[in-house]
Order: sequence, then C-alpha cells, then structure tokens
Amino acid sequence: MSYRAPVADMAFTLKHVAGVDQAMAEGLYGELSVDLLETILEEAGKFANERIAPLNRMGDETGATIVDGKVATPPGWKEVYTAWAEAGWNALPCDPEWGGQGLPSVVQSACVEMWNASSMAFALGPLLTAGAVEAITAHASRELKETYLPKLVAGEWMGTMNLTEPQAGSDLNAVRTRAEPAGDGSYRITGQKIFITYGEHDLTENIVHLVLARLPDAPAGTRGISLFLVPKFLVNPDGTLGARNDLRCHSIEHKMGIHASPTCTMVYGDHGGAIGYLVGEENRGLNCMFTMMNNARLAVGVQGVAIAERAYQHALHYARERRQGRAPGAADGMSPIADHPDVQRMLMTMKAQTQAARGICYMTAAALDRGHLAKDAEERRRSHEMASLLTPVAKAYSTDIGCEVASLGVQVHGGMGFIEETGAAQFMRDARIAPIYEGTNGIQAIDLVMRKLPLSGGETVRAALAEMRKVATRVTQANDPVFGNTAARLRGAVDSLDRATSYLLKALAGNAQQDALAAATPYLRLFGVAQGAAALARAALAAHEARRQGDGDPAHAGRIALARFFADNIATAAEGLEQAVTAGAATLDDAELALAS
Amino acid sequence: MSYRAPVADMAFTLKHVAGVDQAMAEGLYGELSVDLLETILEEAGKFANERIAPLNRMGDETGATIVDGKVATPPGWKEVYTAWAEAGWNALPCDPEWGGQGLPSVVQSACVEMWNASSMAFALGPLLTAGAVEAITAHASRELKETYLPKLVAGEWMGTMNLTEPQAGSDLNAVRTRAEPAGDGSYRITGQKIFITYGEHDLTENIVHLVLARLPDAPAGTRGISLFLVPKFLVNPDGTLGARNDLRCHSIEHKMGIHASPTCTMVYGDHGGAIGYLVGEENRGLNCMFTMMNNARLAVGVQGVAIAERAYQHALHYARERRQGRAPGAADGMSPIADHPDVQRMLMTMKAQTQAARGICYMTAAALDRGHLAKDAEERRRSHEMASLLTPVAKAYSTDIGCEVASLGVQVHGGMGFIEETGAAQFMRDARIAPIYEGTNGIQAIDLVMRKLPLSGGETVRAALAEMRKVATRVTQANDPVFGNTAARLRGAVDSLDRATSYLLKALAGNAQQDALAAATPYLRLFGVAQGAAALARAALAAHEARRQGDGDPAHAGRIALARFFADNIATAAEGLEQAVTAGAATLDDAELALAS
Repeated sequence: MSYRAPVADMAFTLKHVAGVDQAMAEGLYGELSVDLLETILEEAGKFANERIAPLNRMGDETGATIVDGKVATPPGWKEVYTAWAEAGWNALPCDPEWGGQGLPSVVQSACVEMWNASSMAFALGPLLTAGAVEAITAHASRELKETYLPKLVAGEWMGTMNLTEPQAGSDLNAVRTRAEPAGDGSYRITGQKIFITYGEHDLTENIVHLVLARLPDAPAGTRGISLFLVPKFLVNPDGTLGARNDLRCHSIEHKMGIHASPTCTMVYGDHGGAIGYLVGEENRGLNCMFTMMNNARLAVGVQGVAIAERAYQHALHYARERRQGRAPGAADGMSPIADHPDVQRMLMTMKAQTQAARGICYMTAAALDRGHLAKDAEERRRSHEMASLLTPVAKAYSTDIGCEVASLGVQVHGGMGFIEETGAAQFMRDARIAPIYEGTNGIQAIDLVMRKLPLSGGETVRAALAEMRKVATRVTQANDPVFGNTAARLRGAVDSLDRATSYLLKALAGNAQQDALAAATPYLRLFGVAQGAAALARAALAAHEARRQGDGDPAHAGRIALARFFADNIATAAEGLEQAVTAGAATLDDAELALAS
Repeated sequence: MSYRAPVADMAFTLKHVAGVDQAMAEGLYGELSVDLLETILEEAGKFANERIAPLNRMGDETGATIVDGKVATPPGWKEVYTAWAEAGWNALPCDPEWGGQGLPSVVQSACVEMWNASSMAFALGPLLTAGAVEAITAHASRELKETYLPKLVAGEWMGTMNLTEPQAGSDLNAVRTRAEPAGDGSYRITGQKIFITYGEHDLTENIVHLVLARLPDAPAGTRGISLFLVPKFLVNPDGTLGARNDLRCHSIEHKMGIHASPTCTMVYGDHGGAIGYLVGEENRGLNCMFTMMNNARLAVGVQGVAIAERAYQHALHYARERRQGRAPGAADGMSPIADHPDVQRMLMTMKAQTQAARGICYMTAAALDRGHLAKDAEERRRSHEMASLLTPVAKAYSTDIGCEVASLGVQVHGGMGFIEETGAAQFMRDARIAPIYEGTNGIQAIDLVMRKLPLSGGETVRAALAEMRKVATRVTQANDPVFGNTAARLRGAVDSLDRATSYLLKALAGNAQQDALAAATPYLRLFGVAQGAAALARAALAAHEARRQGDGDPAHAGRIALARFFADNIATAAEGLEQAVTAGAATLDDAELALAS
C-alpha cells in the first residue's frame, strides 16, 4: 500500500476549517483562487504519490551511509530530489524577489504534509532548507542574499540549522562554538555541533549551514550568541564554487527512525576556522532563529499530521483486506477486520485525531498568513499573536498524535505490524522524533503557558476560546440529531479549557510559576483536544450545510460522523485534563521521594 | 545504566497490594514466609541484574540469525540460559512431581518481571516453555509427562506454542494444519505455522512443540482442533535423543523489536509428516490451550510492567545526570533535568503507571493462587473467577502502559532518546509486541466485556468494585491531608467504572452486543485506571500505617505521593472513559463513510 494524498480532505479542511474560503473572499490571498489551490494540491499529491512515496521503505532499509566523511543518501534519492526542486516545489513559499513563488503558508503547509507523508526522511532536508531561506531572507545582508538565496530557493543548494552542541540542547545558553572576526568582515568558526539534520549529503553540490556561535567578547548566556552563514564550499564572486570550507561531517547517528535522513556531527575549524558570515546583528543570533521558528515548528507539527495520515491509510488498507472472525451482523465466513467494532474504533480514532491535528495546523498556517497579509494593522497584530498562540499546540499536539496514530496503525496490523517488511513499524519509528526536535513537546507546553497565554493580557487566548464556543453554538443551532453529542462535548471541552486557562493566568499573575510549569503538558493536551474538537465540528457544519444545499457526496456524512466520534471519545478527556492542570504544583510534592527508590 | 531489580517495591506490592501478607497469615502459602519470599526475590534480582541485563543491548544489535535452517541466538546467550536453568529458575512454578519447586504465581510473577526487565528477548523463551509445561502437566498422558516434563521443568529442553497460521491469527477457526493417526497411537503432522517464538534455536538440545492441528474427520471451526506434542528430536525409551523429526524452521522474521528472540515460520511434514502425540482429548485442543492461557496472558502483562520499569530506571538515571537550564528555585547554573517540573511529571507518570500495572498483575497472580490454594471450595471458585476477570485487564492495561512508559522514556532523553546506542529506543521497540501477542489487546477487551463481566451474573465484577470502594473509604477514614485528592479521585473512578459496568451488563442482558463490543476498549482502560488507582492507594495506606508506627523509611512518603499523583493526573481520566463507553455502538454510526475517503 503506497500513499495517496488525501487532496479532497485537505482542500475541504483548508477551506472550511482554516477559513481559506473566507480569506479568499476578503481578497487576502490575491490571485490565489480555490481552483488554483486545488490544482497545486493535485500536482503536489501526484509528485508525492508517484515519485517520493516509492523511496520510503527502501530509504529506511538502506539508510544514509558515511564513508571517509562523505555521506550518501539511498539510491534514487538524488534523482527524485533534483526533479522535485526543478519542478519548483522548493521555491513554493519563498520570496519572488529570489525566485520564489510567494505562496502563502496554508498552501505550503498542505504541500509539506504531502512530502512528509510520502517520506518523512526525504522531506526533512527541504524543511530545514526552508528554515534557512527564511532566516537569511529576514536577516542577512543584501550581499549574502544575492549570493545564496537564488540557489537555496531553487533547491540547487540546501540549508541546515546548527544549534545543538553536546552540552547545549534545550538550553542554548551553553553554546560554546566560537566565531572570531577575521578582519575582512568575515569570521572564523570553530566548534562542534551535533544532531545536524542533512548536515552532509550528496543531494546538492553545496550546503549552506546556519551556525550559532559566540564572539570572543560576547556576554554569557543567550544574549551572546550570534548567527553565521557557513557554506560547505565558498562561493566565488561569479557565483561558481570555490574552495572547500574548513568544516566536515565527523559521523552520522544510528537512529530509531528516519534512517535515510543523515543526522550529522559537524566539526568546524580543524584548520584554523571555517569561514562564516554574520547574519543579522552581533549577539542577536537567537532572535534571528526565533523569527523562523514559528514556521519550522508548524512544519514539524505538519509532519505529525503527515505520518499519522500515512499510517492511517496503511492500516485502513490492511484492515479491509485482512479477514478474521465474523463481524456482528455479517453473513457466514470471515469478515474484513475493518468491520469488527474494536478495529473500527481504532481506525476512527486514527482518522479523527489525524483530521483534528490537520485542522489545528492549517488554522495556524491561516493565522500566520493573516498576520502577514491582512490589510488592517491591528488585525495583523491579532492574527500574528493567534498564530503564536496556536504554534506550540500545532507542534506538540500533532506530533504526539503522529506517534499515537502510528502506534495504533501497528496494532491494527496485529502480528504483521511488528514485522518490519509490513511498513507500519517504520511509521511509528519515524514519527517518534517529531515530539523531540524543533523544541521538545515539553518546551512547547512551557512556551504555550509561560509566553503565549499572557499575550495581550490573555486576550489572545480568550479570543481563541470565544471562537471555539461559537462553533459549539452553531452546532446547537443546526439542531440536527445527526450531530449527537458534538455540541455538548465540545462545549464541555471549551469550558474545561476556559477554567484551566483562568487558573493558569491567575497563577502567572500571582507569580505561582511552579503551578504553571507543572501543569503545562496537560494544559497543552487539553488545548489540542478542545481545538481539535472545534476543528472537526467546523468541518461537520460545513458538510451539513453542503448536504442541506443538496450536495450528495457521502464524504459529508463521514465528516459529521467523525466530529461525533471525536466528541464522544476524545473530547471527553477534557475535564480530566482540566483536573490535572488545576492540581498545580502540589501534584509534584514529594516527587523526589517517590522517584528516589 | 543497567537494570537494578526494584526488590523492595516488588515485595511491598506483593505484601500490601496483592495481599500476600494476609494470605500467608491465613496459611495459604504453606511454608513460604515473607523472609523466604524476599530471599528468592533478592537472588532472582541478582541473576537478572548481573547475568541477563548485560545481554540485552548486544542481543538487540546482533539479533537471532538463521543459516541453513539453523537458528543461533547471540553470543553468550546459551551460557547464561544454561546457568539460569541450572540455578533452578525455570523450575520455580512447576509441579514438584516433575522436579519443580511448586512456588505460587505471586513469586513466579515477580521473577518473570525481573527476567523480562533485564531482557525481554531472553525471557520470552522461558515464558513459552512455562506455558508448554503447564499444558502438558494438565492434559497429557502419564507417558508423555514422564518422557518430557522432567527435562522441560529443568529447562534442559524448551517448549513452544504453535497456534498461528497465515490465515489463522486471532481467529483459530481457520487452522488448517493436519494430523493423521499413524495407527500406532501417534499422529503425522503436516502444515505451516507462523510467528512461532523460539521455534528454533541453539539454547537447548531438544525443543518440544505444542501444535494445534485438525484430525481428518474433525468438525469445522474451533471444535475440531486438537493439540499435539511434536518434539524436534524424537525421544528413545531410555530418554536419550533419537531421530530428527520431520519439521524445520523455514525462516525467521525481521522485527521491530525483541531482535534476539527468534520468531520462526515452522514447516511440519516435508517428508510425510512430523511424528506427534495427542495431548488431551481429540478435538479439545483449544480447551487445553485455554487452561494455560490465563497464566500466559498474565505473564505478558508482567512483561509490560517489566519493560516499563526498565525504561523508567533508564530515564531516571539520565534525567539525574543530564543538566540543562535552571530549575525553578535552583541556585545558579544548570540543573539536572529531573528537577524541571515537566520532566518530573514525565518521570512520575512513568513510575505511577508502572506501579499501578505491577499492582494489577500481582493482584491477579494472588487471585490465581487463591483459586488453587484456598481451603474453601467456594472461595476457590470466587477467586478463580476474580483471576479470570482481572487477567485481560492485567494483560492489556499493563502492556499498553509498557508502550506508553517506554515512549515517555525516549522523550525524557530528548534527542539522545532517538539514538539507538542510548538504549531507550530499544525498550520502546521491544515493548510494542506485548499489546499484540497472546491475544491482542482488542481481544482482551472483548474477553473482559463479553465473557468476564457476566461471570456469576455480574457478581464477580461487583465484588471487584466493592473492594476498590473499600480502599477509597479507608483513605477517607485515614483523614490525613497528605493524601490530597486520593480518596475523591479514586471514588470518582470507581463510580465511573460502576456506571459503565451497569451499562454493559444491561447491554449484554438486552442482547445489545454491538454496544458492548464497541465500548470494550475504553471500558478495559477505565477498569485499569480504577484498579490501578486502588492499587496505589492500597500501597499508600500501608505506607501511611507504617509511618504511623514509627517507620521512618522515606520511601513511604514517596508511595503516598505516587498515589496522589496517579489520582490527580491519571484517575481523572475515568469519567471521560465512562462517557466513551456509554456512547455505545452509536459512536460508530456512519463510521464506514468516515473511513471511506
């Protein structure tokens, strides 16, 4: 079973859950029409299905390899990457000034989902390149932009992010890599970076590293970190490649998943220092990184959606083929296991959670777009804050869902799920990295609670809650028994989120940070559950309306069923999560004694 | 970080949660004293820590291998297995008539936990042997017993269970392997079996296969399946090994985890049929299997506890060593990540869930023992039913917990968790099989709801509920603020379980099997949550009482903290699960439309 991009569901979610329909009606997206959007998704889906998906199993089995510091991707990867870049997919979200197509985040998010669903290990390289392009576009000098952006945007070169060092993971205060001014405007970079995704490979002739490092006189901590552009090959004034820079890949990691994505230990400055160029201001490197982090975090959330979708499709296919036992009400003989209620429950959980996470991610992308594109400055500000609020939820909820759905996918396969050749296990192994990188999900939860809830004195989160409540009201007003408990359970979840939010805002105002920190993880989950229920209810409302207007597509009944299933089985977790949140820091009293034995 | 058997916690759980203390006081366990119990655990722990645990990483890396049908376990495994069997550990639970030590299930369960925590791939072979010994002891002829049991009990030979065929997994109706009477009292077995754990290996000179097969005139379905003993090497009348039997290992699987445990495709009868001997009556093979299934399912549940414990220890060790960021209230500099509230929450979740699952498994073992050993026949009957009720919960809840805790273990390690050399990923990969084999967790949930709830007209489950309620009452009566919400949340969970149980009993009585089948999985989880909360509260009560009597062991405060943490953060899921249960089959209405797209 290969991947088939769920273009109809994606387009429906974009239009009716993320509100792209309305944004288009407002003229926010310029010439981008629904038709064009759907054409782009169709084309991206075709490339993902036909070209990338076939690489995935083999990529897992072969993995990236390293010989004498040279890293090779699996056979066939370079050809597909080159075709992909030549088709313009890398340039999709980039600034037209540098050769990009300038398409909005909603389109890019849907495409990122398809690349990652077809092969997460493949799509990860371009994801990092996109981050590098963004940071350079926002912060680098005109000269650096002119030298590097056209190649990076075209995908002829790829980019990396070099943050982590052995002693500096979640805590970048501890970065030690040094940068010494060379006197000619450039710097000499010395140090070691670990966990560098696509730090070295054979897909492109040059690799552009963005490296966090400290100047000699830099203050301690994160306020003394600067960002440098350090190319693998130096670039001559005419744009041709010059000398090899003083950097190398020392080794690649042996990982649980995404085997074909090389995770490199990079060594800078064996011979006096790699030549690097400052991006942005001195000592402001972390700020440069943060400007692109919202996008990168959203993209990782989309990876969670992607792997969940892939695992779901794989499991559904198997469950329809595999026959065991007789399902209730079935004729004699064995039924497809998809007809057994407990397997159906697993498949519905997979699909409902995937759709919920997709809704959250696309809503976040739409808020990002509105933050850039809205005509009104105040609306841009509000939308930007909404995107900031939703980003940690999109990242952490979706990547947790990715793992849970992939694990359910293994379970649906029974014994076959544990056999590597089946493919289900790979999705589970691949998915496991997403809750860790680009800021662990614990860090996301702390970001949500400590930095995002207080935005505009709590108004931003209140606006999000009001929006969810409106959806519940609309379901009630639709007054159709087909919705079952959808409105009641959604309202219950929003009430819980509301009370939990008030508890946390009060804790932060009262300087009870311990309570907020202890409660951060269940709070983020609660947020995702409520927002996910609202996303599915929105889709159900749109489907309901379409049916009312005579649209006989059976998918509409499916969307209503999915919202109801989520309401009954997943949104019902909200009150328990609220209770966990409001237990506060006291729930960890004597924890050190409990953990001592 | 290697494994250190948590002997103190295990003994405490046995005594105060599983009630072994009281059972000993009643004289149920004969000469087995607390002292002797603790000595056995200490010795088993020593063997597990020192001999088995060092095999685990290497076993994962090397894996079992096959060349020309010969299967090799990793280097060193045979030596450790031989030493383990010679030390008498294999014989521990077996009938003294055949060389066993006749120790009860509570002792065996604790030991099984240690073998599996030190290496699940290693311990799996003996687990299957124990099942074979049990089936032969209960059902085979005197002659078969005399020929095979002494060697199997001593661990000189190992045993296997051959159930699954490509078309017959959860549904054994479809078994096709044939058995023809040879006229001399033996049978000729022909067919193919898949997923046969330790079906072939180099640990012992002979392997005794128990094989499900059909006689020529057998009725269709499961009532036409018989059980046969089929040795790898035939046994001469003097007990020496004779000719090689007509069976072979065709291949071994490439699996997600437990790499060192060979999972074999077995072929019987290439040359006219393997010689087999009937165990039990013709066409009653499935009944013979079922008598030993409670024990085997409990043992798999214990595997879940084991891998959770191992993952917890690994993560705790890392979290205490690894320093990042400054924890709230800490002095300057980086704190161990174990001091950060969100990491502490992960560790507490790991420990609380592990202890809850351990409590449930040991309680199940104690009920099994009481079912055999109680003086009063009515008590034996009731205890036997209680064990039957708890077994699917012990199996499914504990193995789900095993996966969840192992996944949290990866998360605690951050990026290092995704690197195979760290070891955390292996626990997650190994753990993933346990919810699948020995009856998938979906099958367990159906068993619980369809066959176990109706036991004694619902009296058995009512007795379990009453027991949990008593624990809540005792916590309330203790009237100490240190318990926090323990009593309230436990009572809430029991109330939810009670209502969900009534709903299901009513559905079953009203022939609304669809409702029961659709609700089975959340019901089992709810049962585990309530029973787990009760188990931890029991431990907390015992710790509280010990403190009252002047015992200053700080572990007691830890036990109370753990029960409170579970109550606040995990038991609070109960009401949501109840709502999912009582949504019934309607929650799957139109599911096929939702899954169609």
